[in-house]
Amino acid sequence: MPQRPRAIVVVTGSELVRGERTDRNGPFLAAEALRLGLEPARIVIVGDDRGELEAALREGVEADACLVSGGLGPTHDDRTVEMVARALGRGLQVDADLEREIERVSRAAAERLERPYADFRPGVRKQATKPEGAVSLGLAGTAPGLLVEHGGKVVVVLPGPPPELQRLWPNALETDAFRALLARAQPPGRRVLRFFGVSESAVARALAGAGGDGDGVEVTICARDFEIHVDLVVAPGAEARADALEAALLPPIEKWLFSRDDRPVEEHVLSLCRARGLTLATAESETGGLVAARLTSIPGASEVFVGSVVAYANAVKEAALGVPAELLAVHGAVSAEAAEAMARGARARLGADVAVAVTGVAGPGGGTEGKPVGLVHLHAAGPDGGVSRELTFPGDRESIRARSAVMALHLVRRMLTGIRDEGA
Amino acid sequence: MPQRPRAIVVVTGSELVRGERTDRNGPFLAAEALRLGLEPARIVIVGDDRGELEAALREGVEADACLVSGGLGPTHDDRTVEMVARALGRGLQVDADLEREIERVSRAAAERLERPYADFRPGVRKQATKPEGAVSLGLAGTAPGLLVEHGGKVVVVLPGPPPELQRLWPNALETDAFRALLARAQPPGRRVLRFFGVSESAVARALAGAGGDGDGVEVTICARDFEIHVDLVVAPGAEARADALEAALLPPIEKWLFSRDDRPVEEHVLSLCRARGLTLATAESETGGLVAARLTSIPGASEVFVGSVVAYANAVKEAALGVPAELLAVHGAVSAEAAEAMARGARARLGADVAVAVTGVAGPGGGTEGKPVGLVHLHAAGPDGGVSRELTFPGDRESIRARSAVMALHLVRRMLTGIRDEGA
Repeated sequence: MPQRPRAIVVVTGSELVRGERTDRNGPFLAAEALRLGLEPARIVIVGDDRGELEAALREGVEADACLVSGGLGPTHDDRTVEMVARALGRGLQVDADLEREIERVSRAAAERLERPYADFRPGVRKQATKPEGAVSLGLAGTAPGLLVEHGGKVVVVLPGPPPELQRLWPNALETDAFRALLARAQPPGRRVLRFFGVSESAVARALAGAGGDGDGVEVTICARDFEIHVDLVVAPGAEARADALEAALLPPIEKWLFSRDDRPVEEHVLSLCRARGLTLATAESETGGLVAARLTSIPGASEVFVGSVVAYANAVKEAALGVPAELLAVHGAVSAEAAEAMARGARARLGADVAVAVTGVAGPGGGTEGKPVGLVHLHAAGPDGGVSRELTFPGDRESIRARSAVMALHLVRRMLTGIRDEGA
Repeated sequence: MPQRPRAIVVVTGSELVRGERTDRNGPFLAAEALRLGLEPARIVIVGDDRGELEAALREGVEADACLVSGGLGPTHDDRTVEMVARALGRGLQVDADLEREIERVSRAAAERLERPYADFRPGVRKQATKPEGAVSLGLAGTAPGLLVEHGGKVVVVLPGPPPELQRLWPNALETDAFRALLARAQPPGRRVLRFFGVSESAVARALAGAGGDGDGVEVTICARDFEIHVDLVVAPGAEARADALEAALLPPIEKWLFSRDDRPVEEHVLSLCRARGLTLATAESETGGLVAARLTSIPGASEVFVGSVVAYANAVKEAALGVPAELLAVHGAVSAEAAEAMARGARARLGADVAVAVTGVAGPGGGTEGKPVGLVHLHAAGPDGGVSRELTFPGDRESIRARSAVMALHLVRRMLTGIRDEGA
């Protein structure tokens, strides 16, 4: 199997190398590289230090594709273009057309901000300066994305802000140089298996029992968001091997398979409701709106999702969901009875066909001997009945809340698909 | 000013280098390094490829502190320990005590999973094998964290899963070798200024006008979460310079300063309510629960936050919040009138002193000529009156929803602190 062209991603940003912000450009560019048939070999994050940036770029330009983000601004701290030129051993030159284009944008900004254009002029000249042979990929504000071809390899330089990077990136793919590189790459096939309710080690054992990966099929097993995500990267020509591997690995774990695509569970839930003409609501205590927020993150949610009551205080459980005060006094707010009453109340008060309720102890405080931190009661109610679950989750507040929200979504999914297995 | 000891972070994980998951260990270790007085120079993410990992570690061990995560499992793909040894030019040896410790954990796991211990034995031996001179930092499952001292420098090797890494990390700081390194470092002072309602370029101009950073004070300006975060890293001895810089940079932008600490705006809102004995609720349409979810992410939120109505469908705005059908028919669900009625309804129905309502067009669909995608109406209502805001946000669904939620939190904050300026 021929080697895929190698890609190295270099991300610059002092707030990134200091851990003050999580980088999004690295994962985006690496995933794009993989999708296009390149092999993402490393992602390097550096700050403003000239030496670190130059070292990272000198290594980076040895790859078939060096994808760089950040440091394209007009100030002296923005050194990416200069360092790319040094790493390639090329000179810098001002591109007159580009300078005119950037000047136009700058003059408009100067007018809008009521500042003299003279303030902007040095920055304009700087941003119109590019390595010999570079082509512009278009402007993000006043910063041009750039692509430099060198000996069949490419260096792509993009702005730091993720939306701007993602906007200019497709222009890099349209260049002759990048197309030529991709012609040498063979985009792999991608297959996705998503499981819920089974452990990562059980999935790993199923894979090992099926012969493991190799021979053109690379398998990654990843516990993410309390689900188990299995990704198969299938080299061209290895499709039959991938079919056989899938057929061998699934049987012991198939009942926990919930998706063969990338759609998040909330999208599956909305789909299942939409297909049956059902409306959906949530009643949340401990998750505080997380389940509703996940459902409403999907465009078109309003076709199915009608609303939610976040009943944090007991008085609100009574007033807004009709949970009897006596029930709360006898069983407590964190109980199977409360979860069921909340779900029933959401259906009635919000006029929904299906409702899921979550009540639990998120921590760090609030736990008792009988009801420790991490105890969660859930109930999903629909036209054909309901299903309850009780779990105790480990971890901190954030983890317990996130896991409860995922569990609520899968509980509804399983109720709608008629699955009654216990799973995790 | 003496140079800070240099730290390089190496993170391994094939799902990370492929952009399938966002790395959290890199930012955590880099931020820790900075906090302790080290200089985080780069974060490198590599996958399973032996060559990439070895190259990254060879560079990494040249730093005063090389902090490594991942690849400590029992399988043949887990190569970190072997590669660290190679990078240091040291041999590997089995630590008998460690092997006994890991065996204990493995035998218990084998019993629990009802599998023969023979399956686990090779992995146990592997995980008890460490570079000459390495000390164990404790176990995460069966994987030991390790620290190797070499010529006054340290290499710290930690497990991949973030909670496990964060649990073992403090043990590295307790070792003699790390303490000796830190004795050479001088932890900087950190100051934080958080602004809302002003642009990043205005803050940058204020900094430039105050003389800019330097002389032991490093300033990072970062637009994050639609706020402007200014971080000052103050070298020991430069405190007076930092005071002077702060005093000079603040006046033009001081009215948009909302915090001098790291607490998120939702924590400020809860604090302000708690101090006045006020309860709080939200009424959300477009944000779908995001505001409530942010408020409830803070431990102790229940002292203030009583609940929320996510009124996605108009019928729910009417039934659960008492918004008059006629108002919705005349003004529409996305209007100042609807936002005000929703906030009033939340106060009444949920029994809260303060309520904030958000209604808008998140997109991508749903926009009209008069009410485009990104249009958002907000209203915060309290015992002393209310305040409305109308904005049109650019961007995609995720961005519009997130920005609306932030705006809602700041609107309540400003109402409670009596600030009436318009800001952004």
